[in-house]
Amino acid sequence: MAAPFIRRGISAFDMLSAEGLEIIEANAETILEEIGIEFRGDAEVLAIWKDAGADVDGERVRLPKGMARQLVSTAPRRFTQLARNPARDIGIGADAVVFAPVYGPPFVHDLDNGRRYGTIEDFRNFVRLAYVSPWLHHSGGTLCEPVDIGINVRHLDMTHAHIRYSDKPFMGSVTSRANAEDSIALARIALGGRFEEGPALISLINANSPLVFDATMLGALKAHARAGQACIISPFILAGAMSPVTPAAVLAQALAEALAGMALSQLLRPGAPVVFGAFVSSISMQSGAPTFGTPESSMMIMAAAQLARRLGVPFRSGGSFTSAKLPDSQSGQESAMSLLSTMMAGVNFVLHAAGWLEGGLVSSYEKFVMDADQLGMMHTFARGIALDANAQGLDALREVGPGGHFLGCAHTLENFKEAFYNSAIADNNAFEQWRDDGGLTAMQRANRLWKEQLAAYEPPPLDEAVEEEMQAFMAKRKTEIMKDAS
Amino acid sequence: MAAPFIRRGISAFDMLSAEGLEIIEANAETILEEIGIEFRGDAEVLAIWKDAGADVDGERVRLPKGMARQLVSTAPRRFTQLARNPARDIGIGADAVVFAPVYGPPFVHDLDNGRRYGTIEDFRNFVRLAYVSPWLHHSGGTLCEPVDIGINVRHLDMTHAHIRYSDKPFMGSVTSRANAEDSIALARIALGGRFEEGPALISLINANSPLVFDATMLGALKAHARAGQACIISPFILAGAMSPVTPAAVLAQALAEALAGMALSQLLRPGAPVVFGAFVSSISMQSGAPTFGTPESSMMIMAAAQLARRLGVPFRSGGSFTSAKLPDSQSGQESAMSLLSTMMAGVNFVLHAAGWLEGGLVSSYEKFVMDADQLGMMHTFARGIALDANAQGLDALREVGPGGHFLGCAHTLENFKEAFYNSAIADNNAFEQWRDDGGLTAMQRANRLWKEQLAAYEPPPLDEAVEEEMQAFMAKRKTEIMKDAS
Repeated sequence: MAAPFIRRGISAFDMLSAEGLEIIEANAETILEEIGIEFRGDAEVLAIWKDAGADVDGERVRLPKGMARQLVSTAPRRFTQLARNPARDIGIGADAVVFAPVYGPPFVHDLDNGRRYGTIEDFRNFVRLAYVSPWLHHSGGTLCEPVDIGINVRHLDMTHAHIRYSDKPFMGSVTSRANAEDSIALARIALGGRFEEGPALISLINANSPLVFDATMLGALKAHARAGQACIISPFILAGAMSPVTPAAVLAQALAEALAGMALSQLLRPGAPVVFGAFVSSISMQSGAPTFGTPESSMMIMAAAQLARRLGVPFRSGGSFTSAKLPDSQSGQESAMSLLSTMMAGVNFVLHAAGWLEGGLVSSYEKFVMDADQLGMMHTFARGIALDANAQGLDALREVGPGGHFLGCAHTLENFKEAFYNSAIADNNAFEQWRDDGGLTAMQRANRLWKEQLAAYEPPPLDEAVEEEMQAFMAKRKTEIMKDAS
Repeated sequence: MAAPFIRRGISAFDMLSAEGLEIIEANAETILEEIGIEFRGDAEVLAIWKDAGADVDGERVRLPKGMARQLVSTAPRRFTQLARNPARDIGIGADAVVFAPVYGPPFVHDLDNGRRYGTIEDFRNFVRLAYVSPWLHHSGGTLCEPVDIGINVRHLDMTHAHIRYSDKPFMGSVTSRANAEDSIALARIALGGRFEEGPALISLINANSPLVFDATMLGALKAHARAGQACIISPFILAGAMSPVTPAAVLAQALAEALAGMALSQLLRPGAPVVFGAFVSSISMQSGAPTFGTPESSMMIMAAAQLARRLGVPFRSGGSFTSAKLPDSQSGQESAMSLLSTMMAGVNFVLHAAGWLEGGLVSSYEKFVMDADQLGMMHTFARGIALDANAQGLDALREVGPGGHFLGCAHTLENFKEAFYNSAIADNNAFEQWRDDGGLTAMQRANRLWKEQLAAYEPPPLDEAVEEEMQAFMAKRKTEIMKDAS
């Protein structure tokens, strides 16, 4: 089995100087003190802020300079998210890197059937594809919206699919406080006695940027944080729409929003595992459409990661983003640009690492396996350059000497199997060989690959009693939810 | 007119620690002293080495530790390459970054006509496409091999095409000492009196790795270096074939080869402008085919750039590499991975920055304009994050406040035109709009774009007397060459 997560052997890139970071940090404090953040539709949260000493004016909460940063100091620098298979437990924070698949698309796409709404079977297929990839450490959350299941109950089927068809860690529901509690209950069933040992869920709490947390997100945050489950506090910013158009302003706003949300998590439960999130990209100022894999988003991800490191909390950002409609050259380019930027930045938790297409509206089968292949490359890259005596290879140079070749030398024979990452998608053959193999594009090769992977999939073992308990819980909750809705 | 080259506002990434770099440097010195480098078929070069104090044994030259590094200390850290249009002069070294197109392919490809041998008209088209792009600073060298012109004389037509159809700087011929001198003569005609002010050519001197410089390259190096023209001393290493399979060994070998070649350039003419080059990639250990855009090549480019910085010489490496046969997702991914790695590395002279396809066997029209678009993005990325008061945008946040949007605020209106890089290829539209526009792939959109660019191309002004002098020189040289060959 592959390692359950990456430990970086390389450093992270510093996009901003210390002076630049101090400017951003000072501006975030100004935003929190002067403009403030709105916490909407949740009187309990407003009372908590008031008790903590914040300036609460209606739903607007202003924090004196330094207050949020002080509150966040109780958050752990690194924590472990449990999986139902203990060998799959992952580290989040510090030198750990975790790859999780795409989150949220209403549509799915594959080359054979085109673009269509997602179903629970699509959802399960993406759980399976994430499970079989050695390069994805996490099963993710809403792999696609399964629109063939009622919106009020689908969180149950989605959580169940993560547990039933994978044994990797997964994400909690955030669509309401009750749904969050349902996902916690299912995780508790799946992990049994281990559930008490640490967070078994990590959940995505988006700020409603600019400078708002809404009642749904606050409800989910309260449920997860109080249960000791991990939360990612994540500004979702398309610069030019939800923030000013300039990266320095985006960064200050994102830091202010994340600080406010993380501080609240610590008020709810000091020491609660929390992650600084930053979904930051731009829009086309010509069409207003969101854009991905852009130089501005690369810069912002790198700078935001620095802010998180200085704050001493784990960081979530980046992924394999594209606005392309097909896994074509645009898709490959934008995804590689965003993924490598994510790695250079030193992101700890990489959501949307596989399957993202069309600005996040589509989960793509072909893109999923293409991206997973890229994630494999990032494993090699993150290790860095080995410098032991074998890697230095001086004896090979002595053996071969000027004008020779290394194809058959002892050092090559000893090392060639592990020498280079071997892509499952890239075609490196000669033109004639490629042509005789059908002259396929990468998209067409990926179409073959995901079908092979699904055909070969075998579910991880699951105790029958756990499955029965989950089914009973789901049946009970579906009955209750239907009754409430009628 | 766009800036003639990039000045980095961001730092470069350090892949290796200082200790790691010292290991590589020590191994390079061991290679030079113990194994040595072969300088083949050039008695004059061997005599120069002997006079300089090297241990010369047949064609094998061994250099005492520190000797090469000492000799290289006379090379400039940064120099200017002149263009026939002074506004196009470029800096090479330090914080300067220059993008030049693909070099060397025998084949060309476009979507309409497929894959075929290159012609002089293809060559001229690539000169035109590089000229019209604001993101390419350089006209390059062998944009494709024009096989419709005799191999003994085509260097004249290629050099003339760079001068006639562009006013950006370009590369010298290296296919023989005489051909190198012909390219120098044409550059002298084109630049007139300015020719004496600095190098007007930069030329690619490849080591015949492992550890060999052949007579052709030595002849070209002598011609260019003695004429004060710039040379890139470039190991060409596919790890596993021309070097050991391990990156640390590749780096030591590349440093040894580059040190030897650069030291020779300084013996030929102390202070001659010279660039540390490193073409470093890997091969598939399954098929033996070269691979590009791999994690190993990214790591090696970054580490080699650090070696060059410590040596205090300009660095050439990287590009927009792929082994894909079409500008598909593999092409986009591999090219983006290699280009962003190149930028993070801090490469000064980026050859193969546009048009490279199929492992360098093909110059692609579609890929050329796709890559040029990526180079535009790299201009934005290299500037880094602006931190002036306008960029900080606090007043915009004050104006809009929680829950608002920024589409119409004063700050957005003042900044939106210049806010984000606007891609010429990426389609960010909604799915329905894209579908109604024909549902084109990026490859198909690029096909339209290069045709539009060639249709709109207008040559830069060129003094009629210069053209006549070049034609007269070429006619004379062709007659001489034909006579010699008969």
